[in-house]
Amino acid sequence: MAKEYTVTPWEVHGDVDYNEIVKEFGTKEIDDSLLKKIEKYGKLHHFLRRKHFFAHRDLDIILKDYDKGKKFYLYTGRSPSGPIHLGHMIPWMFTKWLQDTFDAPLLFQIPDEEKFLFKNNLTMEESEKWATDNILDIIALGFDHKKTSIFKNTEYAKTMYPVAVEISKRITLSKAKAVFGYTNETNIGSIFYTAMQSVPAFLPSIREGEPTNCLIPYAIDQDPHFRITRDVAPKLGYPKPASINCKFLPSLKGDSKMSSSINETCIYAGDSPEEVSSKIRKYAFSGGRDTLKEHRKKGGNPNIDVAYQWLTYFEEDDKKLEQVYHAYKSGELLSGELKEICIETINKFLSTHQKARAKAESKVEKFMLRD
Amino acid sequence: MAKEYTVTPWEVHGDVDYNEIVKEFGTKEIDDSLLKKIEKYGKLHHFLRRKHFFAHRDLDIILKDYDKGKKFYLYTGRSPSGPIHLGHMIPWMFTKWLQDTFDAPLLFQIPDEEKFLFKNNLTMEESEKWATDNILDIIALGFDHKKTSIFKNTEYAKTMYPVAVEISKRITLSKAKAVFGYTNETNIGSIFYTAMQSVPAFLPSIREGEPTNCLIPYAIDQDPHFRITRDVAPKLGYPKPASINCKFLPSLKGDSKMSSSINETCIYAGDSPEEVSSKIRKYAFSGGRDTLKEHRKKGGNPNIDVAYQWLTYFEEDDKKLEQVYHAYKSGELLSGELKEICIETINKFLSTHQKARAKAESKVEKFMLRD
Repeated sequence: MAKEYTVTPWEVHGDVDYNEIVKEFGTKEIDDSLLKKIEKYGKLHHFLRRKHFFAHRDLDIILKDYDKGKKFYLYTGRSPSGPIHLGHMIPWMFTKWLQDTFDAPLLFQIPDEEKFLFKNNLTMEESEKWATDNILDIIALGFDHKKTSIFKNTEYAKTMYPVAVEISKRITLSKAKAVFGYTNETNIGSIFYTAMQSVPAFLPSIREGEPTNCLIPYAIDQDPHFRITRDVAPKLGYPKPASINCKFLPSLKGDSKMSSSINETCIYAGDSPEEVSSKIRKYAFSGGRDTLKEHRKKGGNPNIDVAYQWLTYFEEDDKKLEQVYHAYKSGELLSGELKEICIETINKFLSTHQKARAKAESKVEKFMLRD
Repeated sequence: MAKEYTVTPWEVHGDVDYNEIVKEFGTKEIDDSLLKKIEKYGKLHHFLRRKHFFAHRDLDIILKDYDKGKKFYLYTGRSPSGPIHLGHMIPWMFTKWLQDTFDAPLLFQIPDEEKFLFKNNLTMEESEKWATDNILDIIALGFDHKKTSIFKNTEYAKTMYPVAVEISKRITLSKAKAVFGYTNETNIGSIFYTAMQSVPAFLPSIREGEPTNCLIPYAIDQDPHFRITRDVAPKLGYPKPASINCKFLPSLKGDSKMSSSINETCIYAGDSPEEVSSKIRKYAFSGGRDTLKEHRKKGGNPNIDVAYQWLTYFEEDDKKLEQVYHAYKSGELLSGELKEICIETINKFLSTHQKARAKAESKVEKFMLRD
């Protein structure tokens, strides 16, 4: 049977089958036994309790090392080409939890050349504008500036390029084509780019002069890059970075992944309460029944209802979420009412975020790493 | 008829036909009318008088602009992977003459990653060692430190990488394959590298914020890189760099190009007078006859005699050279005697060079450009 979805670093569409992805990409499912191990370090983040973070590589090894006193650092990133939306924030919220729970340093890469290389209609100037904008949203999520370094590839290239050279020597064109599907029309900057994305997985090992464990939280579409990184690691004498992967936050209309290119399917980090309520009321795909009578009788389907799905991300309280689930499923709670709960939850989250963002500008220099 | 030679940035062998190369590469011959124009600015360098610099692109345009008061800068380079030999120094000696004659600033690139990417058996550490070594030979040639900036790609990457990104977006894999012959086994760093080699052709235009003319002196094997540079220039809104190209200094054994990989065919910049005389006496391919009697009768052939060919590079005095030519051709001068003249000339040149090199170390910081 032909696969009915596509997941690449540039394109996600169709009805993503995450069980199949685990097999196809060669990652491991985060099972209950691993969750129990993680619970030792603190209450599980609701993204773990609800399996939004569903896959990993070598997380068990990183934790074993951690128990023996060998710490790890985190590496994640944001390729700037537009405003931040809720979907972008999921892996970063979780990264902050990892930072707090494991007292882990974080390298936050801003590959400001990536989207310029891969898109036709973006200039470097626009990319830089979005980098400046996006960094405020990142800082607003509450990372500890003493443990977090944010760097743009173009500003950190003196450090990064020599490492990218070492990495790129170990990646053949044939390998890059197989992993990313490049054609003769692909530009040579795009082809080289994956080496730049691998660099932060090795920087601390280089700096410390000894193997340093790295954990990379990312949405699963970035996996091809890090398969390359893991492939190259032993050739350079560095440990393979571990990974922990999340599913995509569905779009308002219920597609697999929220995409900033379609305004109506997105809630942006800067949206006003009115924009949020208007978008959710208008567009959020509903799992409710066609008529009030039918809904009361048969109940709604929370599993396909976007307002409910979003609550699984933004309502931390398991009991509250369960109440909503059952009330909706039983028909007691109507679609419109569910949407209002979602609106309130998202607006509460965004209100906190936007307040923090307003104070972020003055903190930027504490975070930035430059050559 | 199949071509009987190969000229690529990585490989030169066979009996190079420079007339054919002009056609194949799409360059222009430096004809007598162009030489006359150049003569306006000062006595022609003997490399021009003797057509060692034989080809160009847009040199006439650069000179017309120069006459109108629009100056140009020079860009050349050295990819470090071993000691400097006489062949390497030819384009640089000429570059110094251009700098002096046209009061031209010079960007001297040390692409310390190039040979690492293209060779299997060179580490970055070795490349750095040779970079440090080679820079002394470059400085010893007498460039004006007020008008000359030497930079290693890895140390100047914060400036270079963003420009290389812009360039690389305009080069498709298909183009790179066509120009360089890359295969699926080529590493992705090598493929990207040409973008880094193009950068210095645009840096002053970027810095000045207006189109700045560039002249690149180089041995003709580097031409594929600069064909790419010229192809990309208008897409970025910069002027195409002009070029002026030399033939290769023949090896001791008479091959088309001196190669540092074969010790006996090379005179290194650091060779002692004894090494020079021993190598030339032992190995220099002779255009003399088999017996003394035959030589006296029929004369030698200076056109295939390496000692004579080298004199055309290192003996500036046209009269002296002509005397040697006729004396050898008439049979009056014997092969051994011609070799002694060559030895004396080379040793004089190297003695001056080595004295200057001994003082170069203290000047390095005046030349180096770093981020």
